[in-house]
Amino acid sequence: MTKNKLSQDILEVLKEVAKTSTSLHEPFFDGNEKKFLIDCIDSTYVSSNGEYLEKFADALVDFTGAKYVSPIVNGTSALHIALKIGGVNEGDEVLIPSFTFVATANAVSYCNAIPHFIDINESDLGIDVFKLRHYLTENTHIKNGVCINKHSDRVIKAIVPMHTFGHPSDLLNIQLICEEFSLVMIEDAAESLGSFYDDKHTGTFGKLGVISFNGNKIITTGGGGAILTNCEDTHSKIRHITTTSKIKHEWEYRHDIVGYNYRMPNLNASLGCAQIEQLPNFLNAKRELFNLYLDKFKEIRGVSLFEEPKKAKSNYWLQTLVLDKNNPDLLEDILRATNHAGFQTRPAWNLLNYMKPYSKNPSMDLSNSVSLRNRVINIPSSAFLK
Amino acid sequence: MTKNKLSQDILEVLKEVAKTSTSLHEPFFDGNEKKFLIDCIDSTYVSSNGEYLEKFADALVDFTGAKYVSPIVNGTSALHIALKIGGVNEGDEVLIPSFTFVATANAVSYCNAIPHFIDINESDLGIDVFKLRHYLTENTHIKNGVCINKHSDRVIKAIVPMHTFGHPSDLLNIQLICEEFSLVMIEDAAESLGSFYDDKHTGTFGKLGVISFNGNKIITTGGGGAILTNCEDTHSKIRHITTTSKIKHEWEYRHDIVGYNYRMPNLNASLGCAQIEQLPNFLNAKRELFNLYLDKFKEIRGVSLFEEPKKAKSNYWLQTLVLDKNNPDLLEDILRATNHAGFQTRPAWNLLNYMKPYSKNPSMDLSNSVSLRNRVINIPSSAFLK
Repeated sequence: MTKNKLSQDILEVLKEVAKTSTSLHEPFFDGNEKKFLIDCIDSTYVSSNGEYLEKFADALVDFTGAKYVSPIVNGTSALHIALKIGGVNEGDEVLIPSFTFVATANAVSYCNAIPHFIDINESDLGIDVFKLRHYLTENTHIKNGVCINKHSDRVIKAIVPMHTFGHPSDLLNIQLICEEFSLVMIEDAAESLGSFYDDKHTGTFGKLGVISFNGNKIITTGGGGAILTNCEDTHSKIRHITTTSKIKHEWEYRHDIVGYNYRMPNLNASLGCAQIEQLPNFLNAKRELFNLYLDKFKEIRGVSLFEEPKKAKSNYWLQTLVLDKNNPDLLEDILRATNHAGFQTRPAWNLLNYMKPYSKNPSMDLSNSVSLRNRVINIPSSAFLK
Repeated sequence: MTKNKLSQDILEVLKEVAKTSTSLHEPFFDGNEKKFLIDCIDSTYVSSNGEYLEKFADALVDFTGAKYVSPIVNGTSALHIALKIGGVNEGDEVLIPSFTFVATANAVSYCNAIPHFIDINESDLGIDVFKLRHYLTENTHIKNGVCINKHSDRVIKAIVPMHTFGHPSDLLNIQLICEEFSLVMIEDAAESLGSFYDDKHTGTFGKLGVISFNGNKIITTGGGGAILTNCEDTHSKIRHITTTSKIKHEWEYRHDIVGYNYRMPNLNASLGCAQIEQLPNFLNAKRELFNLYLDKFKEIRGVSLFEEPKKAKSNYWLQTLVLDKNNPDLLEDILRATNHAGFQTRPAWNLLNYMKPYSKNPSMDLSNSVSLRNRVINIPSSAFLK
């Protein structure tokens, strides 16, 4: 096992900073978690109804500034419904980064739609708006107010910016592209609860936005997610389709469209209520951890710690190292050295366009994604590491 | 508001028996629920991994006798995956009762397959095997070992017996039909945890079986479900596809098929572990409640309390009244009288073949389903009502 100088340098920092938690991201339960869970059991409302569901939705409305929030069973299911209610139909194409977790593409597939891969940029790890505008201008035309892929002749219905590791994408420019090319924006804000762009919370720029509360996220409900929207009608549709599309009636069971059982259970919402109370503290702690790492990594050559983009306030969900462009071959070596020393470090996801289910999908030039996939490493990021 | 004699008689029984719980079915938390939830929080494993998930799966293996059990995020998602792994492909038809909760049909739709409605019988409220054999003989032929619908020319791949209100269907005869007509049996045992047929647990007769732990079921995990199978390879496929189809690797994220985020969170499994310890008591209590209702209703003309079918031991999940055949017009009157008096009574589901998303689906004669839909009433059934 070879260990080069850079691997050793990184390992030394981790040994110093990540002493108490070597995991990539651990949840932290130091508030009302047990109290609320016990209260939930006492109420007997553990399932699809209950006060914690309403309280959790209200707390998310307060924090994010979205007008309406629906707690959902998990982030993937939330994205599935956001796409469906956002208007994505069978056979449509949906623009998504190839540099994202597989759930982004899977949610598109659940709609029988087709992920169309686009590139990211180095400054925010999100959609590269300059490349995208050029690509859409060359490869699409607008027909009856709809964006058509010139090559496949299919409708390109939507675009899904994903806020990588919590860092907001270039949302105002993506909004402009949506206007120009008649695209619906649906934000995959799974990783970015607590992240703002231009003083506005991520997930509230698109027609719909989606948050995740999986165990590895900044706050957790065990499993869970939420859909954000500012449109009352959209919100009603979300409520309806995620609760089996049942038509209200005192005792009859009748359903008017194919629905889903996607509600978050009240039990999980009770955990969420306790967690969101601590969110401001977690955000402070994660920013402090960033500053601590920044101080340590500034002396180390060949790698830099990723900083929040301009105009953005990031939640710093996952701390991220980026190898210099002349150093990408070191990635595997660093991953091996750090993981074998007991520190959970991770590369970014393998690019979706290289994975079997998506290898034949439409795609633009993805050179930035390829480059960053070989240079990005996430390091231990738990809130209590500050 | 008219109230006939029968409505009044039924109301009198409910006033006597359902004094402490007027709900159709309430969960009961009198065991280790709080202890296990607190322990789960202390472990920090609340999400997709943790000891309670393994313990809950093991307890279900012990109780049901299935070789393998996968805890899933809910019953609908469990059925979706059971159908998919059971071999249901896009464009296939799947035989399901029209007399079932809409989730049975929705799960088929999620596979882009087509629910094909079949009739039930009066003795167990499940699939009418006599009618079905006749129907399949007349309307299908076997080609290359596959059952083909003569009219649509589509493959009929599978059949989904649903054990209505906990009462086992005629499973041995359904197995024979499956052999005769090359159908895969996937059991919708959502309602029948604790119900046995021929001394074998429901959900273990088909290639796969599905249980629900929704808040209204005999035990609950808040939201949750499970898939049962005796086949190791099938179990591996379930584990893989429900955990985003990730290929095992120390640090890489690679996925080989379109996967799902369908794992049950460990938090919910901890509740399940506490609940399943009490299942034998719940089953006894529900049988006692049945006997209590039986005693009261035997004097009342025009209605009978539904008893477990022959060869079956039912969990008596929902206590069920069946109006005499000459009395069906009284259904609405009884529902109105009892609900307006504060007792939650419910008719069976509106038949799926009459609902908008499924009104044009293939279907056999459904006269028994139509008749029973107009004569069945569920009454308060909580375990602690004994």
